[in-house]
Amino acid sequence: MKQVIVVNAALKLPRGKLSAQVAHASLASFLSSQPNLQQAWLEVGMPKVVLSASNEEEVLGIYKSAQGANLASQLIKDAGKTVVSAGTITCVGIGPAQEVDINKITGSLKLIV
Amino acid sequence: MKQVIVVNAALKLPRGKLSAQVAHASLASFLSSQPNLQQAWLEVGMPKVVLSASNEEEVLGIYKSAQGANLASQLIKDAGKTVVSAGTITCVGIGPAQEVDINKITGSLKLIV
Repeated sequence: MKQVIVVNAALKLPRGKLSAQVAHASLASFLSSQPNLQQAWLEVGMPKVVLSASNEEEVLGIYKSAQGANLASQLIKDAGKTVVSAGTITCVGIGPAQEVDINKITGSLKLIV
Repeated sequence: MKQVIVVNAALKLPRGKLSAQVAHASLASFLSSQPNLQQAWLEVGMPKVVLSASNEEEVLGIYKSAQGANLASQLIKDAGKTVVSAGTITCVGIGPAQEVDINKITGSLKLIV
């Protein structure tokens, strides 16, 4: 079990903003997943990985792939009050789900640094 | 309603690691809060703020203050597999709770940049 959050790296968000958006994606995706998957993930300590996508189009494509695979996923758009324009896609949360299922979609992405 | 995550800035965590720890704190604190506060916070769009503390002692003090005020709060220690030593306190999540209650504890802290 794991959860993956894929970030729109083109935005080059500052650390605090990035962290808040990733947390938002993590919680939203968790809340949209099935109770048995939620429970299984909590029991193993909520492992999560933050990966990088090149731009908004890539994030959107990953979201659509996750939806097509029936994985819990939530696209996060910023409210636009501070750093970026309203409606900008900042990241997508996928899972918690089985690692093998998530890896089919995000397996080629790199860790954010 | 809001949630605050206070980060141990002394660790100078890389962006991906920081984001994952903040997400962990956000979700853990959410799950430990009362259902009526969870619901009220979800209804206003889960507002959250990421703040900075100077070191582990300050993060621990904030956690104790939150516990003393009966606010939902969760101290996050790293598993130590990657960037920092096992057991290192990386951050604390507080709330969701009423803003006035959280501000009594974290009102003097600065946004992380």
